[in-house]
Amino acid sequence: MAQKPGIPKGTRDFTPAEVSKRNYIINTIKEHFQTFGFQPIETPSFENLETLMGKYGEEGDRLIFKILNSGDYLSKVRDEVYQSKDSNKLALKITEKALRYDLTVPFARYVVMHQNEITFPFKRYQVQPVWRADKPQKGRFREFYQCDADVVGSGSLWQEVEFVQLYDTVFSSLKLEGVTIKMNNRKILSGIAEVIGAKDKLIDFTVALDKLDKIGEEGVKEEMIRKGISEEAIEKVRPLFNFSGTNADKLEQLKNMLSTSEEGTRGVEELNFIVNAIEVLGLISASLDIDVTLARGLNYYTGAIFEVAAPKRVRMGSIGGGGRYDDLTGIFGLKDVSGVGISFGLDRIYLVLEELNLFPETVSKELDVLFINFGEKEAMQSMKVIKNLRMNGINAELYPDTSKMNKQMKYANKRNVPKVIMIGEQELNDHTFVLKDMEKGSQETHPLENIQNLF
Amino acid sequence: MAQKPGIPKGTRDFTPAEVSKRNYIINTIKEHFQTFGFQPIETPSFENLETLMGKYGEEGDRLIFKILNSGDYLSKVRDEVYQSKDSNKLALKITEKALRYDLTVPFARYVVMHQNEITFPFKRYQVQPVWRADKPQKGRFREFYQCDADVVGSGSLWQEVEFVQLYDTVFSSLKLEGVTIKMNNRKILSGIAEVIGAKDKLIDFTVALDKLDKIGEEGVKEEMIRKGISEEAIEKVRPLFNFSGTNADKLEQLKNMLSTSEEGTRGVEELNFIVNAIEVLGLISASLDIDVTLARGLNYYTGAIFEVAAPKRVRMGSIGGGGRYDDLTGIFGLKDVSGVGISFGLDRIYLVLEELNLFPETVSKELDVLFINFGEKEAMQSMKVIKNLRMNGINAELYPDTSKMNKQMKYANKRNVPKVIMIGEQELNDHTFVLKDMEKGSQETHPLENIQNLF
Repeated sequence: MAQKPGIPKGTRDFTPAEVSKRNYIINTIKEHFQTFGFQPIETPSFENLETLMGKYGEEGDRLIFKILNSGDYLSKVRDEVYQSKDSNKLALKITEKALRYDLTVPFARYVVMHQNEITFPFKRYQVQPVWRADKPQKGRFREFYQCDADVVGSGSLWQEVEFVQLYDTVFSSLKLEGVTIKMNNRKILSGIAEVIGAKDKLIDFTVALDKLDKIGEEGVKEEMIRKGISEEAIEKVRPLFNFSGTNADKLEQLKNMLSTSEEGTRGVEELNFIVNAIEVLGLISASLDIDVTLARGLNYYTGAIFEVAAPKRVRMGSIGGGGRYDDLTGIFGLKDVSGVGISFGLDRIYLVLEELNLFPETVSKELDVLFINFGEKEAMQSMKVIKNLRMNGINAELYPDTSKMNKQMKYANKRNVPKVIMIGEQELNDHTFVLKDMEKGSQETHPLENIQNLF
Repeated sequence: MAQKPGIPKGTRDFTPAEVSKRNYIINTIKEHFQTFGFQPIETPSFENLETLMGKYGEEGDRLIFKILNSGDYLSKVRDEVYQSKDSNKLALKITEKALRYDLTVPFARYVVMHQNEITFPFKRYQVQPVWRADKPQKGRFREFYQCDADVVGSGSLWQEVEFVQLYDTVFSSLKLEGVTIKMNNRKILSGIAEVIGAKDKLIDFTVALDKLDKIGEEGVKEEMIRKGISEEAIEKVRPLFNFSGTNADKLEQLKNMLSTSEEGTRGVEELNFIVNAIEVLGLISASLDIDVTLARGLNYYTGAIFEVAAPKRVRMGSIGGGGRYDDLTGIFGLKDVSGVGISFGLDRIYLVLEELNLFPETVSKELDVLFINFGEKEAMQSMKVIKNLRMNGINAELYPDTSKMNKQMKYANKRNVPKVIMIGEQELNDHTFVLKDMEKGSQETHPLENIQNLF
């Protein structure tokens, strides 16, 4: 009996229409990565297991897909280990490779391995799939693309300025207007922790603060007190409860609030530089907004933190994020290489463009013209014409069989082709062709030599 | 201690220069796939194990990378199975997924799963990596790209004609002139087997015949006799030992030789149609050559067989191949879907272009202009200019730090950038810029408003 075909849960087939739409997004992102001077690299789909393990926390380790060693992989497993029948212990003996979990750790590994051939600062982009053994659910997949751009080897804040511009340029280019680029700085968060005198409570503090819209000032304060943050401490950062106005207003409030913290003050200065530069240079369609509740990957980032929110009319989590990290490559033996990078969330951007109907119509029009097949001689004449059209970059094809007109036209409709050309016996003799415009429904006869003018 | 980073054997990192060159080839192939009316699909990197197993022969099964189940994968393994400590038996219990081994089986699976949404004939292309646990050696990798185009759902020979044109168009477009597209037909091989009265000796026969250049007619005949093919049989296909002349000459000889075989005659007719059509339509730079020793994947193909040889001045195996298969999807339950397809060998094409120095110089020029950083105010002025250049599609960047000129120029050289622009204090005041042409070594001052004219 034949196998009933299926695919592993959490994975997807992409149809031609879907690939075209995904490529539209990916190509737009890549195009701007390039105008901003980023260079592409690619790394292998699987890395040595030890390159990945221990980099993503305990939960991350569990979500890494491990590849079974080839050949008689059990022959090297000692009986004692084998007899314990312990999944974790055995896994370390029968797997040596694992699928990439993100693009950041492979990038760090790449930089260290290639440090002698790289000229720093190194601006790289990478658009490749990653794999996670997460429980699949709506919008969460086991295989998905990451689109990352990073610069390593420079502490210059112009990089942060550029990343704000890059987000703005890409989303404007995708006609996705009204995104908000939220920014924070790890040093500001540290300053807040210093001021409230509770470094260990920083996450509790930001998590509570983030609920301001939902539970109000009193609710947030209650939660903070419940988490062990004192009323005096809360009083010291009171401006955060009415944190509004322009970015300049916010910076002024932060400056005053964090004046006693050296690190906090440095964070405010950094943010000030970036906000000021963007003010001078201008943005196309996005807005930049200081958000002190932004704390993604707190242990990872050391400076700027970015997150991009879709336009408010769409319900969607963040569609991009990133930040500065000061010791990405240390784990592989290369110290003191500062880096900063951002990521675009392809799957979510896709959903947003779909919902707002922002994919250009041309994306799904892949075939420009179909030639109807009336028989061998007529087909040969069509093939001569098709050859020239293709050489001019026009996507053209002959229906391969001499099927009924009905069937051939049905195919034309399904392929969403705007033009159909018919060269039958009479046209062959007259040296003409019949053009059927699929949108207007009109049909006209033209001399064969005029065919190039149609496109 | 820091980990010493490495990558699994048989895998590769691709540097920016390598990615650019690979993309140049891939984009050229894709561009022509599209002008020929093919549509892109993508399938998951891993498939269910049973989708892949048993499709590539016993050796193939061994070379498939299997993915260890997540979680406590041993908990479901019965003790009896476990105690046998048999690598093969255990593998079936602790793995359910495996990395794609080629693009053909996933394509067949795709067609069957999506048969109700596909309009046949279905012309699809697919450019994705595949993985094989082969012993790595020069030019053979464990992860490599395949670039495939196939049509399913039509038996029309126009498809074969198109594939010959497609090869010619792609290689001509890559400026790789002088490739030979070798063609054979499975039915001709069957005809030969019929005529020599030894169907089971067909592979021995073609293998021996293929050595004609090396060991001469006598050597080949000796080998055939040693393999058990009779002298009378060999006499019947004598024309094959002096198989030369034009394709028309060869077809004439084949026609006479195989006149007693119905299948052989059909093969000659098919080949004749294709050769004739190509004669009429013409090729740009490749040549089409009938080669009866061509037998790749004998059990797989049922009609046309293609193989592309690099120009004779390069020592390289085939750089492409394909053919017609009559029952690709049968294994997944969809019968009688004829298909034909070809593949481009990316890694080998890369080596050939490298050897013949055919990569355009522009491929490695990724950055159009670098702006030197003289300090905050000057950098801001540069950033204003850069913003406009980028919006016009020019790849531009500011050196992020105010490092010594020396270091900044070294970076410019390493990035292979053709133009460097300097806006220092004086230029800032004068509203000018200094252009350094990195090829000529010249240096000139221009008014700032003329900057767009440079590109």
